[in-house]
Amino acid sequence: MARNSIGKQFSITSFGESHGPMVGSVADGFPSNATIDLDHIRYQMNRRRPGQSSLSTDRDETDDFSLVSGVFEGKSTGAPITFLIPNTDARSKDYSQLKDIFRPGHADYTYQAKYKNRDYRGGGRSSARVTAGWVAAGAMAESYLKEQLGIEIIAYTQSVGAISCPPLTAPTKEQVDAHAVRCPHAETAEEMQQYIEQLKAHGDSIGGTINCIIKNVPAGLGEPVFGKFNALLAQYMMSINAVKSIDIGHAKNLLKTGSELSDEPGNAGYWNTKENKNNGLLGGISTGETIAFTLGFKAPSSIAKAQTAFDSDFNPISLEINGRHDPCVLPRAIPIVETMCASLILDLYLESKTN
Amino acid sequence: MARNSIGKQFSITSFGESHGPMVGSVADGFPSNATIDLDHIRYQMNRRRPGQSSLSTDRDETDDFSLVSGVFEGKSTGAPITFLIPNTDARSKDYSQLKDIFRPGHADYTYQAKYKNRDYRGGGRSSARVTAGWVAAGAMAESYLKEQLGIEIIAYTQSVGAISCPPLTAPTKEQVDAHAVRCPHAETAEEMQQYIEQLKAHGDSIGGTINCIIKNVPAGLGEPVFGKFNALLAQYMMSINAVKSIDIGHAKNLLKTGSELSDEPGNAGYWNTKENKNNGLLGGISTGETIAFTLGFKAPSSIAKAQTAFDSDFNPISLEINGRHDPCVLPRAIPIVETMCASLILDLYLESKTN
Amino acid sequence: MARNSIGKQFSITSFGESHGPMVGSVADGFPSNATIDLDHIRYQMNRRRPGQSSLSTDRDETDDFSLVSGVFEGKSTGAPITFLIPNTDARSKDYSQLKDIFRPGHADYTYQAKYKNRDYRGGGRSSARVTAGWVAAGAMAESYLKEQLGIEIIAYTQSVGAISCPPLTAPTKEQVDAHAVRCPHAETAEEMQQYIEQLKAHGDSIGGTINCIIKNVPAGLGEPVFGKFNALLAQYMMSINAVKSIDIGHAKNLLKTGSELSDEPGNAGYWNTKENKNNGLLGGISTGETIAFTLGFKAPSSIAKAQTAFDSDFNPISLEINGRHDPCVLPRAIPIVETMCASLILDLYLESKTN
Amino acid sequence: MARNSIGKQFSITSFGESHGPMVGSVADGFPSNATIDLDHIRYQMNRRRPGQSSLSTDRDETDDFSLVSGVFEGKSTGAPITFLIPNTDARSKDYSQLKDIFRPGHADYTYQAKYKNRDYRGGGRSSARVTAGWVAAGAMAESYLKEQLGIEIIAYTQSVGAISCPPLTAPTKEQVDAHAVRCPHAETAEEMQQYIEQLKAHGDSIGGTINCIIKNVPAGLGEPVFGKFNALLAQYMMSINAVKSIDIGHAKNLLKTGSELSDEPGNAGYWNTKENKNNGLLGGISTGETIAFTLGFKAPSSIAKAQTAFDSDFNPISLEINGRHDPCVLPRAIPIVETMCASLILDLYLESKTN
Repeated sequence: MARNSIGKQFSITSFGESHGPMVGSVADGFPSNATIDLDHIRYQMNRRRPGQSSLSTDRDETDDFSLVSGVFEGKSTGAPITFLIPNTDARSKDYSQLKDIFRPGHADYTYQAKYKNRDYRGGGRSSARVTAGWVAAGAMAESYLKEQLGIEIIAYTQSVGAISCPPLTAPTKEQVDAHAVRCPHAETAEEMQQYIEQLKAHGDSIGGTINCIIKNVPAGLGEPVFGKFNALLAQYMMSINAVKSIDIGHAKNLLKTGSELSDEPGNAGYWNTKENKNNGLLGGISTGETIAFTLGFKAPSSIAKAQTAFDSDFNPISLEINGRHDPCVLPRAIPIVETMCASLILDLYLESKTN
Repeated sequence: MARNSIGKQFSITSFGESHGPMVGSVADGFPSNATIDLDHIRYQMNRRRPGQSSLSTDRDETDDFSLVSGVFEGKSTGAPITFLIPNTDARSKDYSQLKDIFRPGHADYTYQAKYKNRDYRGGGRSSARVTAGWVAAGAMAESYLKEQLGIEIIAYTQSVGAISCPPLTAPTKEQVDAHAVRCPHAETAEEMQQYIEQLKAHGDSIGGTINCIIKNVPAGLGEPVFGKFNALLAQYMMSINAVKSIDIGHAKNLLKTGSELSDEPGNAGYWNTKENKNNGLLGGISTGETIAFTLGFKAPSSIAKAQTAFDSDFNPISLEINGRHDPCVLPRAIPIVETMCASLILDLYLESKTN
Repeated sequence: MARNSIGKQFSITSFGESHGPMVGSVADGFPSNATIDLDHIRYQMNRRRPGQSSLSTDRDETDDFSLVSGVFEGKSTGAPITFLIPNTDARSKDYSQLKDIFRPGHADYTYQAKYKNRDYRGGGRSSARVTAGWVAAGAMAESYLKEQLGIEIIAYTQSVGAISCPPLTAPTKEQVDAHAVRCPHAETAEEMQQYIEQLKAHGDSIGGTINCIIKNVPAGLGEPVFGKFNALLAQYMMSINAVKSIDIGHAKNLLKTGSELSDEPGNAGYWNTKENKNNGLLGGISTGETIAFTLGFKAPSSIAKAQTAFDSDFNPISLEINGRHDPCVLPRAIPIVETMCASLILDLYLESKTN
Repeated sequence: MARNSIGKQFSITSFGESHGPMVGSVADGFPSNATIDLDHIRYQMNRRRPGQSSLSTDRDETDDFSLVSGVFEGKSTGAPITFLIPNTDARSKDYSQLKDIFRPGHADYTYQAKYKNRDYRGGGRSSARVTAGWVAAGAMAESYLKEQLGIEIIAYTQSVGAISCPPLTAPTKEQVDAHAVRCPHAETAEEMQQYIEQLKAHGDSIGGTINCIIKNVPAGLGEPVFGKFNALLAQYMMSINAVKSIDIGHAKNLLKTGSELSDEPGNAGYWNTKENKNNGLLGGISTGETIAFTLGFKAPSSIAKAQTAFDSDFNPISLEINGRHDPCVLPRAIPIVETMCASLILDLYLESKTN
């Protein structure tokens, strides 16, 4: 259980730093004989890559990836599958000014406290750039789950600051992608975009929430008592940079009584409920119904506006951060959320075969 | 990585069912030569046990525990430490009526779907009774952290339904225990208690939120990128029955911009911030400042009120559940939250020695 | 990955000391809905228990076990299965003289060096008594493998000191048990027994080798590159007290050239070889042919004869050990070897379902 | 616990195939702030690489490696360290004839049985080429252990077929490297070399034994009861291709009685014995004395001589293998053995800090 690995049956080992030669991942336990859907991997990598729109950092990475092991004649062999994603547009000199500064809201101080050193170039290992390797591996899992089980995983931007989208039950990835902000509700998306651009113009940033909807998960996934679907989902999601909360059960339900939450049976003859009030999960195991959850992201800490920081002697100094940053990470986080969900579900699906 | 085990350096292996002879846990990796604080273990076990007040189930378990391995002459030897907690007041006949029923909101159906069988007596393995073993092991960790590092972990009931407590920064365990509902704010506690008793009288139940405050965690705990403090905290907390959400960053911060969230340095000379806006965690690693988080619990699904359920042929039937249940789990969940935090922090503390 | 746990899909967590109240194990990941073969567990526990014959220690433990979780109405539920085996005949006072002595050949010094303490009663955690819990869990696995897959695991005493048994291909457990020394070859068994009794009379002890033959393992078990069947087999077997060597390929083959070892195909139409020169394993994965291996055990270090030892200040003193000990551990090690094999094979069998 | 990963605190994740674009490894948990000794890594990589002498395959790989993550300004950051080793001289066409053949003694059939496919080019994932990544990571660990703790790990060829070297207690790496066969005893080395060259001329191959001596391991390494030093050592060593036996206690000791094996104390005042009969390990934990063990390797299965094999329909056919192969793997296995030892010892050393 290396700490840069996650997953028991389908595991991802992550490596690389923001400004090293590359980031990447090793995916182990992927079922053999599966066709690798390179197009889908490219699709999700493109959705994650920087430089897509005015809402994301100007850093321009094509995020071309190489798949260098575990695949022979287009199919998985059962051996570990390795993805390499070069860092082509890393401008390390942007960061030399930060060598002796602990930026507010960043991991500069904690890496220093923990490791007695740090790679100060662009956050080093703490940069969200490392998620590129997670997305490659997870997108491969996502295709597999779609093809084998019909599982659909759709995330979208639900709110940006105080701007919220009305509830949606079944947006498509195309609808999500129709707007740069990745909110499928046109009017809200427009409003969000304007708000973000306005903040960007002032050198500021904003957070919000992403909603994720998972359909067609078979009943029986999730392992009591410490491998519950919801518990592992929380671990996977909270691993994503800037995620600060996860709600797997509709915050509003907290106000309801037990009788109000009682989930009335639906059609006779198979398991289903009228309102899916338990959100597709009971006792940490999937019911076969739709699973939805919401993640809260904080506003990016990298802002152009002047701030006060500690230097390496813990004296306050004023700081203006150059470099290229996202005013709002939500649009680029969408594919990370979806593919990390896929990696978890594949893990639990494979494990369910051993029950 | 067995699924009934959690933790890498300090691990807990959980076993037992609600109506078997006992529940228990094996704690592995506890540092050698530490005095075992049996009084504190008893204290936390008593706070978790049923039958404490009118707010909890009438099931009366003294929750006496036996410590049967790993301790010699009052000190830990480095060998695994095992706790056994007998089930003395299990009345299995209460449950025979449930043999062919999938109760709404319970894990009856999902265990059946997963394992093709189920122990229908009181939820079997999915019962919160199994947390007794977690509390024993975690209370041992809590004492160790207090003595070695001065770490304080205090949880309290923050809201019940729509009744909320004003923000508190440093309640003591004594203040928390002063009210049966374990909210340290007297007026709110009174209101909560009345509300819960009223619901109980109507055979109903209610959920709410628990807030947990952790002080004096040393800087540097948490392991990038998949063993982040917050990610593992989410996994540990979401393993607790009925927890549906975790917020490690103040939901209200989601509305703030990056510049509003910029955490201004405090006194010169060491790491500290004026407002601890990042909640003691940066990049998934502790800063040394206070860590606080909030958990949302759903209302207990076991209610006396009549409900509709599926029978084992998936035909709807009406259901009235007898048995003894909590109208609100929050007061008894407090020690579970605290001790599970302790188990995680001990795990990460031990790991930090290897960095 | 707690260090007192072994196995990925089917894991055993071991706990307890020689002179504590009990030893035991938690078996996690056992398939649900399997009938638990208590008779076979009792059979293997009896073969392991002390006091069986003049060849084993006089300590008399009936090794009654309790199965306290994970089974409902005679079948496994999928929850962890816990075995408790009380220590009923522990005479701790025998050991008080050893409090300040590091016995030669025992773990006294190394536990002290590692943990800065030790439970000096009968070896504490380092005693072979803890294998009782392993045997209970592994015997359960052995029955499952026999019933589901027809797998047979037979170990026997191959040599004691310089007394060796002629090669055997398919002894039965009954033939093995026909002689106290558990060598199925009558003449050799007689000779071994006399030799051991003679040594015992002189307060001495002896080691030897155990051979183990595993039939009907399906092709495809073993996980490249660090979960190879042979590599994990070596880990499991070397965990058994007093095992000093493992040979999974006939020592005599080391003298043969590649062409002499070339394994000629057998009957056409399916995988089989004329001589199974690779011993049922290729590339760390089972071929479906018989797997055989040999373990070397050292002579027990607990002898009545006078020895010289270090005291706790590292001054030499003379030592005469009382207590009750085995002059030769091989007969009682037979069931440990068989059941540990079973636990490993079940682990790899379950994992093969995920490939 | 992915199966292509090994180690708990210091873990290696292995990836790549013999004829893919590269092989490599991700080393996680390496202590931060350590200088990376690239020269030593290069030294051990060179000792492992093919094409060194007439005794090894003609395949000529320079085994240049890239270190692409986890190191900043020459020092480890605490992040995972990744090694990439390109396959530059892979001639895949050599293997096309093997597409429908299961070579005797190779993993061809077992990979097919397990994964329902196989990469038939040069053994694919089962090739010893993948150990290049293990050596890079382990050599880094070896330097660290040498510098921090003075640990020395020396392996040498002890026997080739029936030709054995007299016992050696402390050869140096320079003495080992003085002969192509890596036996430091000049006369024996000469004899071994002639024997191997003679077999090579006849298209044949041979195995033998490697002895490994580890000095200056601190007392206290090894984790009861399933992380014992010897048990994990057996797992690590048996992961190396062609290893068939491990003896951690001198086969000759099997003939000795308990009193003969009694390890008399040495000088007063600290732990030491006159003859180190327990080989530096007691109860699976290091004593601080020298640890030595012997590995048995089978003769390489890839030989030029004509053999009979199964085709993919399990009909016997005659087979002549072209390609480039080692007549004896022992010389190239020396650095693999040493570096895998180092990886294990670093793992256990880091863990001992948590005891």
